[in-house]
Amino acid sequence: MTQLEMQGLAAKHAGRVLSIAGTARKNAALEAIAQAIESRQTEILAANQADMEAARAANMRPALQDRLALDEKRIAGVVDGVRQVAALPDPIGAVTQMASRPNGLVIGRRRVPLGVIGIIYEARPNVTVDAAALCLKSGNAVILRGGKEAFHSNQAFVAIMRDALECAGLPRDCVALVTDTTRQSATELMNLTEYLDVLIPRGGAGLIQSVVQNAKVPVIETGVGVCHVYVHQEADLDMGANIIFNAKTSRPSVCNAAECLLVDRAVAGAFLPKAWALLRTKNVELRGCPETRAILGDFVKPATEADWDTEFGDYILAVKVVSGFEEAVEFINTHGSGHSEAIVTNNYFAAQQFLDQVDAAAVYVNASTRFTDGNEFGLGAEIGISTQKMHARGPMGLEELTSSKFIVYGTGQVR
Amino acid sequence: MTQLEMQGLAAKHAGRVLSIAGTARKNAALEAIAQAIESRQTEILAANQADMEAARAANMRPALQDRLALDEKRIAGVVDGVRQVAALPDPIGAVTQMASRPNGLVIGRRRVPLGVIGIIYEARPNVTVDAAALCLKSGNAVILRGGKEAFHSNQAFVAIMRDALECAGLPRDCVALVTDTTRQSATELMNLTEYLDVLIPRGGAGLIQSVVQNAKVPVIETGVGVCHVYVHQEADLDMGANIIFNAKTSRPSVCNAAECLLVDRAVAGAFLPKAWALLRTKNVELRGCPETRAILGDFVKPATEADWDTEFGDYILAVKVVSGFEEAVEFINTHGSGHSEAIVTNNYFAAQQFLDQVDAAAVYVNASTRFTDGNEFGLGAEIGISTQKMHARGPMGLEELTSSKFIVYGTGQVR
Repeated sequence: MTQLEMQGLAAKHAGRVLSIAGTARKNAALEAIAQAIESRQTEILAANQADMEAARAANMRPALQDRLALDEKRIAGVVDGVRQVAALPDPIGAVTQMASRPNGLVIGRRRVPLGVIGIIYEARPNVTVDAAALCLKSGNAVILRGGKEAFHSNQAFVAIMRDALECAGLPRDCVALVTDTTRQSATELMNLTEYLDVLIPRGGAGLIQSVVQNAKVPVIETGVGVCHVYVHQEADLDMGANIIFNAKTSRPSVCNAAECLLVDRAVAGAFLPKAWALLRTKNVELRGCPETRAILGDFVKPATEADWDTEFGDYILAVKVVSGFEEAVEFINTHGSGHSEAIVTNNYFAAQQFLDQVDAAAVYVNASTRFTDGNEFGLGAEIGISTQKMHARGPMGLEELTSSKFIVYGTGQVR
Repeated sequence: MTQLEMQGLAAKHAGRVLSIAGTARKNAALEAIAQAIESRQTEILAANQADMEAARAANMRPALQDRLALDEKRIAGVVDGVRQVAALPDPIGAVTQMASRPNGLVIGRRRVPLGVIGIIYEARPNVTVDAAALCLKSGNAVILRGGKEAFHSNQAFVAIMRDALECAGLPRDCVALVTDTTRQSATELMNLTEYLDVLIPRGGAGLIQSVVQNAKVPVIETGVGVCHVYVHQEADLDMGANIIFNAKTSRPSVCNAAECLLVDRAVAGAFLPKAWALLRTKNVELRGCPETRAILGDFVKPATEADWDTEFGDYILAVKVVSGFEEAVEFINTHGSGHSEAIVTNNYFAAQQFLDQVDAAAVYVNASTRFTDGNEFGLGAEIGISTQKMHARGPMGLEELTSSKFIVYGTGQVR
């Protein structure tokens, strides 16, 4: 058995205990984790220091260094997150659709944990604790495989969480860290079909594609967002300008940020200058179709075909003038990644048809795409945003980390 | 573009139309299909005749020939199935969990079709129509890839269904048949990630494993059943004997049939002769542990290690005496396939703990495992029985062929 197979087997056994542990014990374990992280902060900061020194020596990009760095305030945020998860309702054990059948069998569907969840992510040590807390609360054991740049920080967090689990009377192996951070260990994790029930990649498009392409374990695909804001000819144009400004610039690096603006020809001449008046305050680079350039001027770069399919993740916006509703919907269904799509309109039928016809995890009328998020949607917390249609779609909260089983009460029935 | 890619693209476009077609039009299309199959029966029977002649020439096993054969009665059954699907409630469009957020956004989750479903199955022409009807009712386009032995029958059914769709005002390409029945076309279908939203294999363990191992498209794993009946020391032994007799012999070839009997040591001496008195009437071959052989005699074959993990699909039963509840649950969780598991007991705590601790799609107290079935569970119809934990688990009805999208009504909100 490889190291990882042994971790998988241990996680499977730990997961069985955790699956029937009950809400009180799981919450006690989460509180023990929160307290242990608080009291062993020095250990975490020292481990993070080691990661940061290596990062500086390797000339890591400043934005990535920032995501890697921990300080007292960020650790307090992590602890807070754990307590928020503890406060959420426990999804496990709810029985739905229970009914008697004509033969007297009483059949219900009970919500149960998935079992063992693998998480593959990049160099963000806070994900280590966030993801573990969500898995624990939903009764799942978790095997974490973080980026090698955060290895010392992750190791410190995981050691603390395992100690806290033990104190709370749960198996240490409910949380495990893959200690081999080579590419090979990621590949091995993707093939651990005997022990892993699902694998969730959290990170950039490259990581996610690699997991989706190579995994034999079921994968929940998360996060790539090529999102559009479509300003319909009957839109409130000021509202439209506000919405595209917010969707593009409030946090351009995240997946629910807009990458492309579509506007009906009938209002393009009036709308585009309004939108630009806002976007220019953040130095947004526009890449437009010929009509957009004709209206706004040559400072707009010509959009290439590839621009229509790109998640820029930056202060860059593709802009296209369309003939009307049908072209807009067809364009979105062709070029969108099925994440979040918005129409701005005062027309009742255009609004309803947009909700019907656009195929995406979240479809908006008159609001910014930036709201696609577990907290904003009222799920309490999220482990990621699924852009696939199977199992979970959109922000995934605790319920999306569960499966179900049919329970059947009989009195001797045979068929 | 390959032939299959063209079919995929056509199915994707057809699926968009179908996804918003509404219940009345979908039901009208199903009724048109039912009528067309009735009125063009001669065509189907002639096509089936061609398949049957080839099957006889190739010396196909009689049981397989029987599954391939169609006659007027079987066609009437197929037509009946289509009308039953038409009569089921439409799962599409239901909005759940709709609520206002503090910022005034109104957010709901709407049930939508998956999109395009691929079905890979063996030489059973009735599956062609069953599967298509379930996909159509749930708003999904479907690409069917049946076994080559049923090719002419499948082609006849699909031609008739496409004509009927057109008459009902829906795109013909809502239903498509893969006309290349080589292994290569199956592989290509498993990799059609751009057009297929999910692939469902229906058939034997070999087919299913091949799809699970090789597909890049998300797969719903169906059907392998290594199911147990566990007779607890506080069981009604007559009930236990009835249940294992039914679970083993009422239809041994199906996945919810029992393959293994576990019995507590305390009652093995009293129970096993009772069970054998029934099982012998069907000439069931027993493969037992040493204790079983000591109780029943040497006619019981010694069970090999492999027997504990085998879906016999035949009048063969593995039998093991266990020390008690814990060993039984551990054995089931180790050797079961997560399909259907039953305990026979009068003890309240044993019953509840079995439901809690056994990890399977359907867990029974005092009833035969043979009830795991969409009709028996009240789902109305089923496309298969999922043994995976993601998306769908257990019998899959129309709801399991759907996804969801968040719909968001705003009044200009930005974040």
